[in-house]
Amino acid sequence: MKITLLDGNIMSFDGPRSVMEIAKEISISLGKKCVGAVVNGKEIIPSKAVVDRDCKLELITERHDFFNSVVNYTAKILTAFALKKVMPEGCIFPEKEGYDKTEFFVYFDVDKKLSLEDLKQAEDFANELIGQAFEFDFITEGFEEQAYIELMTFLNVKKEYIDVMIKNNQQRYIKYPVAALNNVKFYSRYATLNNTKDLYKIELNEVTAFQTDGNRFVYKVHGLTATSEKEFEDKKRKLEEVKENDHKYIAKNLEIYHLDPLIGQGLPIWLPNGTILKQEIKKYLMQKEFEYDFIQIETPVIGTSELYKTSGHWDHYRDDMFAPMILPKEEMVLKPMSCPHHISVYKYKQRSYRDLPLRFAEHALQHRYESSGSLTGLERVRAMELTDSHIFVRPDQVKEEFVRCFNLITEVLSTFDIKIDYLSLSLRDPEDKEKYFDDDKMWNNAERQLESVLKELNINYKKMIGEAAFYGPKLDIQAKTALGHEITVSTIQLDFLLPQKFDISYINEEGVLEKPIMIHRGLVGTYERFISVLLEQTKGVLPLWCTPQQIEIIPVNISKKDYAEKVMKELKTNLIRSKIDLRDERLSYKIRDAQIRKIPYQLVLGEKEEQNGTVTFRRYGCEEQTTVTLEEFNEMILKKIKEKSYN
Amino acid sequence: MKITLLDGNIMSFDGPRSVMEIAKEISISLGKKCVGAVVNGKEIIPSKAVVDRDCKLELITERHDFFNSVVNYTAKILTAFALKKVMPEGCIFPEKEGYDKTEFFVYFDVDKKLSLEDLKQAEDFANELIGQAFEFDFITEGFEEQAYIELMTFLNVKKEYIDVMIKNNQQRYIKYPVAALNNVKFYSRYATLNNTKDLYKIELNEVTAFQTDGNRFVYKVHGLTATSEKEFEDKKRKLEEVKENDHKYIAKNLEIYHLDPLIGQGLPIWLPNGTILKQEIKKYLMQKEFEYDFIQIETPVIGTSELYKTSGHWDHYRDDMFAPMILPKEEMVLKPMSCPHHISVYKYKQRSYRDLPLRFAEHALQHRYESSGSLTGLERVRAMELTDSHIFVRPDQVKEEFVRCFNLITEVLSTFDIKIDYLSLSLRDPEDKEKYFDDDKMWNNAERQLESVLKELNINYKKMIGEAAFYGPKLDIQAKTALGHEITVSTIQLDFLLPQKFDISYINEEGVLEKPIMIHRGLVGTYERFISVLLEQTKGVLPLWCTPQQIEIIPVNISKKDYAEKVMKELKTNLIRSKIDLRDERLSYKIRDAQIRKIPYQLVLGEKEEQNGTVTFRRYGCEEQTTVTLEEFNEMILKKIKEKSYN
Repeated sequence: MKITLLDGNIMSFDGPRSVMEIAKEISISLGKKCVGAVVNGKEIIPSKAVVDRDCKLELITERHDFFNSVVNYTAKILTAFALKKVMPEGCIFPEKEGYDKTEFFVYFDVDKKLSLEDLKQAEDFANELIGQAFEFDFITEGFEEQAYIELMTFLNVKKEYIDVMIKNNQQRYIKYPVAALNNVKFYSRYATLNNTKDLYKIELNEVTAFQTDGNRFVYKVHGLTATSEKEFEDKKRKLEEVKENDHKYIAKNLEIYHLDPLIGQGLPIWLPNGTILKQEIKKYLMQKEFEYDFIQIETPVIGTSELYKTSGHWDHYRDDMFAPMILPKEEMVLKPMSCPHHISVYKYKQRSYRDLPLRFAEHALQHRYESSGSLTGLERVRAMELTDSHIFVRPDQVKEEFVRCFNLITEVLSTFDIKIDYLSLSLRDPEDKEKYFDDDKMWNNAERQLESVLKELNINYKKMIGEAAFYGPKLDIQAKTALGHEITVSTIQLDFLLPQKFDISYINEEGVLEKPIMIHRGLVGTYERFISVLLEQTKGVLPLWCTPQQIEIIPVNISKKDYAEKVMKELKTNLIRSKIDLRDERLSYKIRDAQIRKIPYQLVLGEKEEQNGTVTFRRYGCEEQTTVTLEEFNEMILKKIKEKSYN
Repeated sequence: MKITLLDGNIMSFDGPRSVMEIAKEISISLGKKCVGAVVNGKEIIPSKAVVDRDCKLELITERHDFFNSVVNYTAKILTAFALKKVMPEGCIFPEKEGYDKTEFFVYFDVDKKLSLEDLKQAEDFANELIGQAFEFDFITEGFEEQAYIELMTFLNVKKEYIDVMIKNNQQRYIKYPVAALNNVKFYSRYATLNNTKDLYKIELNEVTAFQTDGNRFVYKVHGLTATSEKEFEDKKRKLEEVKENDHKYIAKNLEIYHLDPLIGQGLPIWLPNGTILKQEIKKYLMQKEFEYDFIQIETPVIGTSELYKTSGHWDHYRDDMFAPMILPKEEMVLKPMSCPHHISVYKYKQRSYRDLPLRFAEHALQHRYESSGSLTGLERVRAMELTDSHIFVRPDQVKEEFVRCFNLITEVLSTFDIKIDYLSLSLRDPEDKEKYFDDDKMWNNAERQLESVLKELNINYKKMIGEAAFYGPKLDIQAKTALGHEITVSTIQLDFLLPQKFDISYINEEGVLEKPIMIHRGLVGTYERFISVLLEQTKGVLPLWCTPQQIEIIPVNISKKDYAEKVMKELKTNLIRSKIDLRDERLSYKIRDAQIRKIPYQLVLGEKEEQNGTVTFRRYGCEEQTTVTLEEFNEMILKKIKEKSYN
């Protein structure tokens, strides 16, 4: 048997050897440090797995990229055993996730509500196992079906899963050993540390829900581990940093949205706070659209399959659509885009050149069937509300309309302090007659107009030849998120094609029918993604005007309750959103708590305030306290809300 | 053969007789007047149809209830022939509608856009046929399959329809004759007038779209006819009256909504005007809900089938739901109600007694699969936005919460000048253990609380024993619409059941888990139905604050365009919705036109106004003209909008 090492050296053996034996052959210390190996650049196997034929072997030690995976896998096994010990009726759910993340995960299926208490018990037991310094004891060499079945049965794994795993194992190049820990056998498909004491500790922090292929829900237990205190603290810091910057964690703290697998994957439910945030932003955007002469419409969230066959979505976009509803007389689908619906509004009566531009705007709910693996918080969802618009213009109006859209977009983005990174002008490749809708005159005219506008506005842009949509050139407004991701926030696209497909027209000055050009305009994309960006950018410190709770009223003690209520009532009359903290806690605690919840203003009300009809306020992030009359405070807040000043 | 007449008299004949022959047997004049008969109280047959066995026979003459149907059917045949003549490639589509309406209808399937010109030509030809005084000539007695097939083939009717009709005819008691008119044979399934000249005239007024079982769309041509000028004018007046009072016609004039069969049946598209109206009402309702401490949430428009199996909707309500979408991992349905979604929001964290009452409100889109026959304008639709709320309370809070809901509802209804007709308190029948959720204590407690509140409020109500919902007692707020229909505008329902089904709880003061009670509250029902009621009640003269266009600006001539634009800009800053009429028409025409479109204020701007910075306004329905400064006008309008005064 010939084993090729990473450095190209070849070692020969007269028969099968375990990974550890091979490592020892190189050096005794390597034999001790080796925790497994990568076979032929693909599979990771335990150090006690036996290699019985020629292969390339990469030994895994502490410095190896896969070492963290091995550490995590070891902790995962201990945690799985601990969960089984605490809840023997539960079952470890076999899943295919890697172990290379900061956290490790155990999928656990049990028919009860998993409490924090259960989690704590499991954590304690897992750490106890670490302390007992068990060697992973490989009791059989090679794969033994019977031992494996016994083990899986003990773990309550369903027979169908066991069968699949046995089948998979029989097809593998290398057979895995069955191991035992604390008298419980387990099937080690992956490398582990050689002794449980090599782990520093295990923390189980969080439980989330995971949907299986069989439409069942199992628990996903999140754990953290490492081989040293320093490494552990580093990982913990990294995780906290992610939580501080990741909209999913920020949103959780602020109670913005909630995902319920029983309602459906990727379908955010806007909680009270999230709803205020979303509706305030919507109110602002609609007001801007009113200023810029957009006209709001509302169209159904479904359409017939026929509609999307006419538009071409059915042929080109079907994989991203939800399955149709098969009804006695018709077939309906959730709309993935509103363009055909807006065309219907255009078409419902004969338009004339005097009616154009017609600027239909809709904050429109649409659905896309994203793969469940790609769903991420508010960033990638299956139901989304797009700040959508379709503008119908004459050819001579493209330029002016484009400028108008661009101005609206920049004004709105600056309100949210979102910096435009660059503009991307996507043009067609004139040589590529296949990819692009064939009308040279139209393309040349439209592209010339777009470029001349950008030059006129003295705006830098990147020209992307061959990046245009099938139906026309477009300008994407690119921004960088707080986490450094580049995203398209807004877009302005010209479309010559849909007006043809739906055969829409206007009567020109000579009384002849002509086709309008359609402009697709995305203002800030979807509310879902926009709010995820906003949360990450602000780390949850939202602008006063759109933040869910604007004021926290803190009476110094219960005797000031009446005055607190009077203040709140006064604020409410002006539609200012406030709450009173009547908990039996110390004043300093309440102030700190309001700051943690990122409430822009805290009002402290004591004897002096009640006597004088004043309030003492403190802004988020400031130490300074200011006393003003209630009326002055009201006016100040209203002014700030109206100005939409960022801080 | 024995024929029993309406008065009970029995006539005997020695063989088969046509209806007309039987009528002549009674009197010669009856024979002339008779246009058909009702057989055995069910089928209407032509006067030349032959009766060959014992039956009851009711002769149809001018005074008979069915005479209008016969008149309409006659006009329908002439119109069908006329449409075929104008568009020979088209096909008469056989449908089952009765002929007893004011209008008659012809369903016509042709693969082109039906123009007003086509309609006019068909109308002319139909009236020409009247003038030619054709007798309906029954060329065969009894049903002749071959003649029928020839005829239908000539009319381009699809073979599958012909087969069905032949089969139906073979099963009938009485066989119909094949008739001919103007050398074209037709199959007379119904009674006709004896001579075309008995019709006064035919008017073809309107064409709408009709969806067939095969998901195709055919034209529905609307016609009007009668046997005398007086009757014709009466019908016309009646139709106009309906149009004046029917929200479908009012909405059409005001451009409120639009139905597009390609998007889907019963799915109203809110046109720009309708969207303003709906969004203004929504803004008002949400503000009221803010005042009454409701908390807005937004939940997905779909849910898994599992969710509705848990709630019980799947078992009890499935026929009213859209078909599910079958996806690889799950089955999703359009939500017919939001209750389970709101429970998910309740359940997402542990609630305590201090959190209650929790008042979730959502202006929630929901879908119900109403039969296509029952769909009516905005009144009965398949997609609707409900002013929905679910309030979670402790048992001791039911009473206070009920009063609060009732106050909110009455305040809102009075803003719209909707008069409550009566209140209906639906209680269980305590004997009926099957129909009602079984918990005597709960029921008694809840019903007692509801009744005591009503008594306390000194409100009259009708008690309906056995009318409660399965899950609890309810109070429906009944109103009468402008057309005299009784409808439930608002509702307050107690629910003990869903909290059990979804196993929700709160921690009470002793730290023990308890089940909250759920209150379902419908504020003004759905926007769709509420707006239909509002349109009918106001005949389209909407309150200033929510009317789509508030001001019409009319410069006396083009030289005042700049001033008009200045005025409009000023109004726009205050979010007042105005338009400028720059058409080249006379001033009086423009004023009249604005009144027809029910614009609350017309501003006339001339030299004097421009010089002095004033405006001269005129209110809808008034002759009086008033001149004030632009600033005064602005303030006056803003004040009226804020007050939401009805006129």
